[in-house]
Amino acid sequence: MSWWRTDETHDPARTSWAESAQGHGDFPIQNLPFGIFAPRGEGPRIGVAIGDMILDLRACTTANLLSGDWQEICSEATLNRLLALPSERRRALRRRVSDLLSDEANRAAVEPLLRQAADAVMHLPARIGDYTDFYVGIHHANNVGRQFRPDNPLLPNYKYVPIGYHGRASSIRQSGVPVRRPSGQRKPHDAEHPIFGPSVRLDYELELGVWIGPGNRLGEAIPIGEANEHVAGFCLLNDWSARDFQAWEYQPLGPFLAKNFQSTISPWIVTAEAMAPFHLPQPARPAGDPQPLPYLLSEADLQHGALALTLEVFLQTQRMREEGEAPVRLSTGPATNMYWTVNQIVTHHASNGCNLNPGDLLGTGTISAATREGFGSMLELASGGQDPFQLSNGETRAFVEDGDEVILRATADAPGFVSIGLGECRAVVLPA
Amino acid sequence: MSWWRTDETHDPARTSWAESAQGHGDFPIQNLPFGIFAPRGEGPRIGVAIGDMILDLRACTTANLLSGDWQEICSEATLNRLLALPSERRRALRRRVSDLLSDEANRAAVEPLLRQAADAVMHLPARIGDYTDFYVGIHHANNVGRQFRPDNPLLPNYKYVPIGYHGRASSIRQSGVPVRRPSGQRKPHDAEHPIFGPSVRLDYELELGVWIGPGNRLGEAIPIGEANEHVAGFCLLNDWSARDFQAWEYQPLGPFLAKNFQSTISPWIVTAEAMAPFHLPQPARPAGDPQPLPYLLSEADLQHGALALTLEVFLQTQRMREEGEAPVRLSTGPATNMYWTVNQIVTHHASNGCNLNPGDLLGTGTISAATREGFGSMLELASGGQDPFQLSNGETRAFVEDGDEVILRATADAPGFVSIGLGECRAVVLPA
Repeated sequence: MSWWRTDETHDPARTSWAESAQGHGDFPIQNLPFGIFAPRGEGPRIGVAIGDMILDLRACTTANLLSGDWQEICSEATLNRLLALPSERRRALRRRVSDLLSDEANRAAVEPLLRQAADAVMHLPARIGDYTDFYVGIHHANNVGRQFRPDNPLLPNYKYVPIGYHGRASSIRQSGVPVRRPSGQRKPHDAEHPIFGPSVRLDYELELGVWIGPGNRLGEAIPIGEANEHVAGFCLLNDWSARDFQAWEYQPLGPFLAKNFQSTISPWIVTAEAMAPFHLPQPARPAGDPQPLPYLLSEADLQHGALALTLEVFLQTQRMREEGEAPVRLSTGPATNMYWTVNQIVTHHASNGCNLNPGDLLGTGTISAATREGFGSMLELASGGQDPFQLSNGETRAFVEDGDEVILRATADAPGFVSIGLGECRAVVLPA
Repeated sequence: MSWWRTDETHDPARTSWAESAQGHGDFPIQNLPFGIFAPRGEGPRIGVAIGDMILDLRACTTANLLSGDWQEICSEATLNRLLALPSERRRALRRRVSDLLSDEANRAAVEPLLRQAADAVMHLPARIGDYTDFYVGIHHANNVGRQFRPDNPLLPNYKYVPIGYHGRASSIRQSGVPVRRPSGQRKPHDAEHPIFGPSVRLDYELELGVWIGPGNRLGEAIPIGEANEHVAGFCLLNDWSARDFQAWEYQPLGPFLAKNFQSTISPWIVTAEAMAPFHLPQPARPAGDPQPLPYLLSEADLQHGALALTLEVFLQTQRMREEGEAPVRLSTGPATNMYWTVNQIVTHHASNGCNLNPGDLLGTGTISAATREGFGSMLELASGGQDPFQLSNGETRAFVEDGDEVILRATADAPGFVSIGLGECRAVVLPA
């Protein structure tokens, strides 16, 4: 079955006996994302989000609701083994879980295995072996390139090479873990020497995260036509960035301490299967742009490789929290602003034989729209700090302040299907 | 005890009853590096190299020659738990192993636990969580910078920032594993578009590897005065590089597919304790260079932070192998050509709160001398391919050819102490 084909688990008429799933913006029964959660006072285990609840898959194995090798795989405390499975195995598990949660006959056995999500602590879903961040948001690349290199915003390789670089796996944290404002070297404008101290240009970046499934062996590339088999699912990713450190350190080897102090991801892996209805044709390249080289070109990918996701960034300042005000939305835009598809970045990454492993994480890079309402970082919204903007409560921002909480969200929509969401990616900034 | 102080394990009069240790260039009893080895037909376990033999530490625990929690730690199949220990624990284990191998009274019990190194298969010594590569070889930075940016070889940040970037952990392999020539995008000179195919400018890079010990918590920096506590040991690192891919892809986010197809390390962790006698004052910076910022400055580090290691690169072509000729030496130079010390790169890495973990690996970057006989890459030896050089058998090289085996070696010397070596880092290049 092809990655963009739907089955009975996507049927919009399907409902769950777990009432909170109906109309749930993120986790209706058509989603069924995997995550690692710990009920209060208990150890971490695999769960599936359904409405406001989490189905405890480990408990499902104990209750013999999952059989065969699912007994072992679903009793793990990370998703790495599950991610290593081929997509048809994930799809089989998805069908089984969908049946458990929709069929009224299963309710008596399954309902005791649901936990309140509000009472659970989420963990990272997998042991992340390697984390790679790409740069596929062409409007972001243009906007930021213009600030760093006014005469040369988009470098000549951009439209041929899905530009990427390795990030830091150890400092990736799940939604909810606060971010400490980092210290580092920056060179103030017109200063003769750099100084060391807390960043004064802290920023967020709105990205999609891609979870690698089976992976490839060292030395063996992944053909573009098979890339989807290696994409297990998606999350949101906030690639926190200290712009002052970045400007000073990034040449010639790329961003380092400007990024690796922490990255935040949403804790649920929304599977490639759940996303099956939410594929779009990859937007045609602007006239004059080169075609991708053959190793990155597939008809199926051009027809279905873009994602029907709407991305949003919200901000809740400390004052808003204290005064009981809801977060304000800073931007929203579609994920179709990716110049390269997910399959293209996977194939490119492995094209030299680099081995991807189950549980590796790829970031897309910041996804900005062409216009201001869809800018995916504060650097873009406030023009590199030169044009601070006003929030609804009168506060202004040029960069992220201590006490600010940044919240990323994403919703997938397609005609005739029930919308699903990726869940929240949020973190509050602590003083240095 | 300070990291540069020696004890009875460094006594040059100390010998081992294991005869091959005497006069062994790499592994006399004063070295005692840790590694993971598998005797033929058996599983991987922790070993200590001694001469041409390997002491099986797991077998030592079974024989009750190691007690307490060493029983568990030394029965692991990776060194991560051992690396996580504070240095005084490693030092205690070193003293115990040194006594086991030097005291004639222990011979009867210990000798049966030695295995022939030639019959063992070496593995990676640790599960490498994250791998970071630095750029501290200032002559290399100058030489390469001149080729990539003739008017601007050394960027303004170089003398303030220990430049580093994240590398790929998944594709690091131990000495002996062949390297497949990678395919990728390159843009031939004067071509309008890039093409995809095997690299035609494959290169090696001579680097030191630094194994991280205990590590730090996310958000907590490592003061320069404590950095040595987080350095568990050293190895050799060949940072294979496809120069043609690198030139085309590296802007603006740094090297990616040019490097991550494979990196090769020597399999033994030569501990910080073994290296204690081999410290030198960090060479004074040239007149006019800035002092390091205070967070990177420590008197002890200036006095002892440089390493008394002599580095060598050898090449054995396929023809040499077929004709029974020994490898030829391409270069040799001292590790004092590092502009930043190991402690400085550790402190810089964690200065923003980035968490280092036991078993993380840092590369120094290519260590070249100022003059040709010490150039640590073929890119430098052959002036970017423009000046191919002749080998002793009449063959010429501008870059690494299929069938070439590149061999890195390093020896530590200090007056009044027995020299030790890091062991070999070697790999042969296979056709694409």
